[in-house]
Amino acid sequence: MELIDGNQIAATLVAELKAQVAAIPGRRPCLALVRVGEDAASVSYVKKKEKTAAEIGIESRIILPPVTIPQAELEKLIDDLNADPAVDGILVQSPLPKPLNEQAVFSRIAPQKDVDGFHTVNIGKIAQEDSTGFVACTPAGIMELLARSGTDLAGKHVVVLGRSLIVGKPVGLLALQKKAGANATVTFCHSGTRDLPSITRLADVLIAAIGRAEFVTGDMIKPDAVVIDVGINRVSDPSKKSGYKLVGDVHFDSVAPLATKITPVPGGVGPMTVCMLMKNTVKAWTLGRSSTA
Amino acid sequence: MELIDGNQIAATLVAELKAQVAAIPGRRPCLALVRVGEDAASVSYVKKKEKTAAEIGIESRIILPPVTIPQAELEKLIDDLNADPAVDGILVQSPLPKPLNEQAVFSRIAPQKDVDGFHTVNIGKIAQEDSTGFVACTPAGIMELLARSGTDLAGKHVVVLGRSLIVGKPVGLLALQKKAGANATVTFCHSGTRDLPSITRLADVLIAAIGRAEFVTGDMIKPDAVVIDVGINRVSDPSKKSGYKLVGDVHFDSVAPLATKITPVPGGVGPMTVCMLMKNTVKAWTLGRSSTA
Repeated sequence: MELIDGNQIAATLVAELKAQVAAIPGRRPCLALVRVGEDAASVSYVKKKEKTAAEIGIESRIILPPVTIPQAELEKLIDDLNADPAVDGILVQSPLPKPLNEQAVFSRIAPQKDVDGFHTVNIGKIAQEDSTGFVACTPAGIMELLARSGTDLAGKHVVVLGRSLIVGKPVGLLALQKKAGANATVTFCHSGTRDLPSITRLADVLIAAIGRAEFVTGDMIKPDAVVIDVGINRVSDPSKKSGYKLVGDVHFDSVAPLATKITPVPGGVGPMTVCMLMKNTVKAWTLGRSSTA
Repeated sequence: MELIDGNQIAATLVAELKAQVAAIPGRRPCLALVRVGEDAASVSYVKKKEKTAAEIGIESRIILPPVTIPQAELEKLIDDLNADPAVDGILVQSPLPKPLNEQAVFSRIAPQKDVDGFHTVNIGKIAQEDSTGFVACTPAGIMELLARSGTDLAGKHVVVLGRSLIVGKPVGLLALQKKAGANATVTFCHSGTRDLPSITRLADVLIAAIGRAEFVTGDMIKPDAVVIDVGINRVSDPSKKSGYKLVGDVHFDSVAPLATKITPVPGGVGPMTVCMLMKNTVKAWTLGRSSTA
């Protein structure tokens, strides 16, 4: 069994992006990070994004509207960023405080600056196998982990557990694309699936994104499968100072001995997401340049 | 074994739409049908659409640009139809003659008038489970056939053979949606799938849309499956005056005895597509009314 080391792969990717950005003549890629209010987790996520951007040489523009900002004003702010030629990518940190309408704000972002990949057009482009769009950071990170750990999906049976719009559906549609590294047979299963273990045991590659702590156990795995664990769940652990520990959707101890490769939690998929945001920002810069050239 | 009678279900649907349109006060729904050139099959398809529209009470506006129309002029024509408040739906008959860029023309149609469901936004909305979009006519017709033949997909394993953007992907994504009648476990397989019969034999519902004559044989079927045959293939048949006959992607004689329900070819999925175009046009009228109300 081999651990897929997300931290190491992310570090490699950051180094590659840094070299790529260093070679850019003139204006560097710029990512606008919009954080509304002072939610502690959001503060920490945005800080991490800013730090990684700085490391790569991507300019970040931090915008911190007050928690009281009206919907219309927030949308106007997005419109201004859409129109600003010096901004390549726009990220609005989720979740937005109530009563703001998050989906309306995400949909306001111009598709060509939607580096989070949540716009309807960018979802549609994944289905259309149109590579000019942006793939959401978690599914993009999973594909990168698979490719860089030497897992060619061609002809494999990929089983995706979970059908969310930000993970399950896009990653399954990516695995299904008729292109190098993909071209898999893909099964989507979920809470409504009957006899789930009989389906997950078909998986050459199992992607668990169901949001239930240690849900996937050894009896649900085909021997020699590759297992990607997208879950991040807190479970209580009195032995820890914090009183909890983080576990994935996969019961690591029973699954790992059967797998050829597996991602740990933490340190698997998690570290990839911020990198993929940066990769999308550099892509936005590149696309913007070619469209105005 | 029960035949799913597409002609009969289509006739029911036409009658329902006719009643619905008859109850509309004021301006009736209007479908613009754009046909470029005189391709014989296109002439026949557009005529069929015009006839069904008339039967339902939908106004059709037939636009017949010459085969020599430049790309820019055709796109201008689409822009004008997009802007025309008296036009609810726009259909550009495929295939467009060379050297016209078909995808560019389809993408020019405003998503809210894209009754053929080919726009990136309408594909994205299927993935997002946003029912305000338009589903392409073949996958929409398949879902209607399943529903009206009493096949509830909840908990079923739906295997889709083929991953095209106009059939395989949308129908699989529809079956996967978390809503009444759907909520299936969905597997997409295709030309790159290994040991295909072992996958198709998992199917409670098999949707064959691979475009290969009589490809699915009895040994690929789980007993008591529901089989939807999307294929329309010409094979030579010296006993026919035309010299050919139409067959599906399913080898009917070996599969039908095993199936609980099966669509014939012709007379299964085929008759549904024009109805679904009409249903989409009425939906476009309804959505247009509510957005300007």
